[in-house]
Amino acid sequence: MKAIIQRVTKASVTVGEDQVSSIGRGICVLLGISVDDTQRDAEYMVRKILNLRLFEDENGRAWAKSVMEREFEVLCVSQFTLQCILKGNKPDFHSAMPAELAQPFYNSILESMRSAYKPELIKDGNFGAYMQVNILNDGPVTVELTSPAGPTDPKQLSKLEKQQLRKEKVRSKGHSESAREKASLRSRQDPSASSGAEGDVSSDREP
Amino acid sequence: MKAIIQRVTKASVTVGEDQVSSIGRGICVLLGISVDDTQRDAEYMVRKILNLRLFEDENGRAWAKSVMEREFEVLCVSQFTLQCILKGNKPDFHSAMPAELAQPFYNSILESMRSAYKPELIKDGNFGAYMQVNILNDGPVTVELTSPAGPTDPKQLSKLEKQQLRKEKVRSKGHSESAREKASLRSRQDPSASSGAEGDVSSDREP
Repeated sequence: MKAIIQRVTKASVTVGEDQVSSIGRGICVLLGISVDDTQRDAEYMVRKILNLRLFEDENGRAWAKSVMEREFEVLCVSQFTLQCILKGNKPDFHSAMPAELAQPFYNSILESMRSAYKPELIKDGNFGAYMQVNILNDGPVTVELTSPAGPTDPKQLSKLEKQQLRKEKVRSKGHSESAREKASLRSRQDPSASSGAEGDVSSDREP
Repeated sequence: MKAIIQRVTKASVTVGEDQVSSIGRGICVLLGISVDDTQRDAEYMVRKILNLRLFEDENGRAWAKSVMEREFEVLCVSQFTLQCILKGNKPDFHSAMPAELAQPFYNSILESMRSAYKPELIKDGNFGAYMQVNILNDGPVTVELTSPAGPTDPKQLSKLEKQQLRKEKVRSKGHSESAREKASLRSRQDPSASSGAEGDVSSDREP
């Protein structure tokens, strides 16, 4: 999963003549889901988006506060073109998750964000629609996030797979599973399960 | 080197009260230069930015035409925050090229773009200034580009280093250098050398 986070003074989404969404200060998130993404990627992304320190604190110290700490808004828009692989100069989108799977997954990510923060401060585009997204990038400040299990980072992926294997070995030796492992396993098996991001969201820990 | 390319209906840059730049249809490029980037990364990026097929053709076929083929405009803005490494939730920018080096390098990239296309269709922000970048993202369509020699892709980097080593071995055996190798070597040694992007720019070849 990839996200482009732009810090904004304001942002809005228009479909045809209608403005469907708008925010004031905060972040505009363009979110690209890959065909390989799981609940694990979603949890990472929700946590990072909400906790990324892109704002000043009260004393003007830069990179000190997150969108949540400043109580700013989030405009999230699905953006499959981020899962682009170039074939020469032509973008190929076969690694983007197909819309019929991506839409419910994307909606669950929005719900996780709303549960972890304040529902009324998380705004959305129109999934799959042809939109004009008006972004007033403040700075500019733009950060790219890639979820650790994403297919674009094969090195990290194989590291995660090894960790998973080690866990499975430990389990097969008869050690008891920790609650954390149980939760992680459950969320991998059932992508519709609750993300658990609410509990994790204020933590600095890297997955 | 990283670039975030947004396809736009229009885009502009404001510093304080003054609009310093604006374009109509085209692309807005946010460009992040890393401390390890060389002329090779610049050449790749200029070529890809100008030739990326993000636009429809006359018959409405999607992903068919580049910004150059449609004679649209380019707004390029330097964006060091793209070279961000997260320490927990705090962005760290030590891998961004320091401003005193990045500014002349960035200006040379703009010049390469202007030479490869039409100078009057390439617009710029104010390097290092606090800007408001107004982006009307059309679609939205957003693509992330990473130059192949960039430090964010260690696997590819080590591949390139191996290729370079092989070339050096071949040379030490007394084989004659091809013009291409000479050019590539020169541009790595002298980052101020001409980018050569003009000649390459219409090619589909991957470096």
